[in-house]
Order: sequence, then C-alpha cells, then structure tokens
Amino acid sequence: MSTTQSFKLDPKLDLVLERVVDVPPSLVWDCWTMPEHLKKWFTPAPWKTVEAEVDLRPGGRLYFVMESPEGLRFPNTGCYLEIVKNERLIWTNALLPGYRPAASGAASADNLVFTAIIEMRQQGTGTRYTATAIHRNEDEAQKHANMGFHDGWGKALEQLVALAKKL
Amino acid sequence: MSTTQSFKLDPKLDLVLERVVDVPPSLVWDCWTMPEHLKKWFTPAPWKTVEAEVDLRPGGRLYFVMESPEGLRFPNTGCYLEIVKNERLIWTNALLPGYRPAASGAASADNLVFTAIIEMRQQGTGTRYTATAIHRNEDEAQKHANMGFHDGWGKALEQLVALAKKL
Repeated sequence: MSTTQSFKLDPKLDLVLERVVDVPPSLVWDCWTMPEHLKKWFTPAPWKTVEAEVDLRPGGRLYFVMESPEGLRFPNTGCYLEIVKNERLIWTNALLPGYRPAASGAASADNLVFTAIIEMRQQGTGTRYTATAIHRNEDEAQKHANMGFHDGWGKALEQLVALAKKL
Repeated sequence: MSTTQSFKLDPKLDLVLERVVDVPPSLVWDCWTMPEHLKKWFTPAPWKTVEAEVDLRPGGRLYFVMESPEGLRFPNTGCYLEIVKNERLIWTNALLPGYRPAASGAASADNLVFTAIIEMRQQGTGTRYTATAIHRNEDEAQKHANMGFHDGWGKALEQLVALAKKL
C-alpha cells in the first residue's frame, strides 16, 4: 500500500491490488481513459463491457455497461474526481456527474458504493500499478472482496496489459 | 442560475442563492477558506460556528461544528472537490476526506446530503456571488428549503460581507 501515500487507507474498509506490469504508464493511462480501449479490457471475460463513455475532467461522467455471459446488462455511472495524466485517476459512484450525490442508500446486491484510486508509477520500462477501492463500511468492503475484487481486477489488469502490448 | 454554467442544475433538486455584494472576490474567498473567518460568519446568529478546520485541497477535509442557541453541538465533515482561488469552491458531505463515500443512507432530520458550489465573479468593485446546493432527491432538496436555505444562507452571506468590510 506504499504507493497510495496521500490517502489514509483502512485495511477493514479498503481493497488494494498492486502489481508491476511490463507496459509503460502512458499506455496504462490510455487503456483507462479511452472508451474504445476500456471496452476491450475492463471486464474479466466472459463478462463484457459493451458500452463506455468518458468525460475526462473533474466532475465529468464515467459511464459503462457490463454484460453478463447470459446477456444481462449492468449500467454504471460514476464521477471523475482527480485526473493526473499518466499518474493518477480517481472516480467514485458515490457522486453522479457534476458532483451530485448519488441516490445510493442501503447496500444491496446491485448497489456497491466505492471510490476507485488508480495509480501508476514508472518502474524500469514498466509500471507499478495500484488500484484501490475505498468503501464506506466493512459490509460493503467485504461484499466487494467476496465478489472477487482481487481476482476480477487482477484478471482485468492482465487483459489491459495484453491490449497495451498491441497498441 | 446563469453563473453556474458548467453545472447542469435541476430546479427540483437544487437550491440557488445569487446576490451581488460590495466586497471583492478575494475577500469572499478569504472568508470561505480561512477557519478563523469561517467561525465569525458561517452560521446565522444566534447559532454559532464554534470550530472550523480547513484542509484546502481536492480530497481535503472541511470540518465545522455549529452550536444552537441552547448549546447543542452539530459537527459536520465534508470533502473538498474543486478549489479555484477567488473563483470557485466545491465541497460535498457525500464523501468524507480522501474521497471515502460517507455512510449516509436514508435521509433523516440530521442527515442532509448535498454538494455546495460557491462561485464568485468580479462585478464592478464587488462580487456576483452564487451559492448552489445540489441534492440527490426532491425530498432532501425540499427539506433543505424548509430548513430555511435561502434565509439562512442569505443571512450568513450578510455576516460574511460585514466581516469582509472589516478585513
């Protein structure tokens, strides 16, 4: 957790995936911020990301639709908070675009509220990549862990790296 | 509402106070961002702001304690989102400092979730001042209106102006 120096993490509330990958930060950044790239790696197969929209500015909209192998669609809307090119990207679904508080009350199966902090730091010719999901309570952190945060975000990262190597 | 050009307002969800005051934007900014000033104007008398802390950066903490005439204390914690000196200040209580989603479920008497957008624009020797509170649903917007948003924020602004003239 050493790379998220500016954020106070709480091991009971936060999930962290940290890996070194052999593509440079600029390509990781492109994969995270260009919709046509997002659709190719963002969801661990056999799930798909079938729509992606990016308005890359603080307060701007992140929108994506995940599709299950059975064809069920799961739309998600988030709000970008910090954008530091090739270094750090932060967004949350606790807010809607334009910083409007989201109407997200009690936790439920389809209501997982978190802020994502994606950090990338040059390491040799590759990137030290850290993805942190911070939650409002232990229940939601545990639910996110049980949904397969580490496996899922890890597998998605492998898809990102495979894509980046072709760019 | 013309000055909040970059934000899509919804008249059913948002409350706006817009006034022209005869102190310059830089003094309005100082009153909003310096804790020792905040304590002097932020709460309409006979309420008081008895504590104020400001960590003025995106993700930083805004903390203040309001005290009722009967001596009851009401602590509030928010997270700064945008800081554009002498122009725009945005914070929300939908997030805790460090962008952690706040544990704020259903609306209740002491749980009003909103994002505040404070804008100041030079007009002559004074300031066109716009304070906007954006909410997640009509109930909370209505509750905020019923709590006296316009009177309260207006009276606080008059206190701000009186203070600024002495700075």
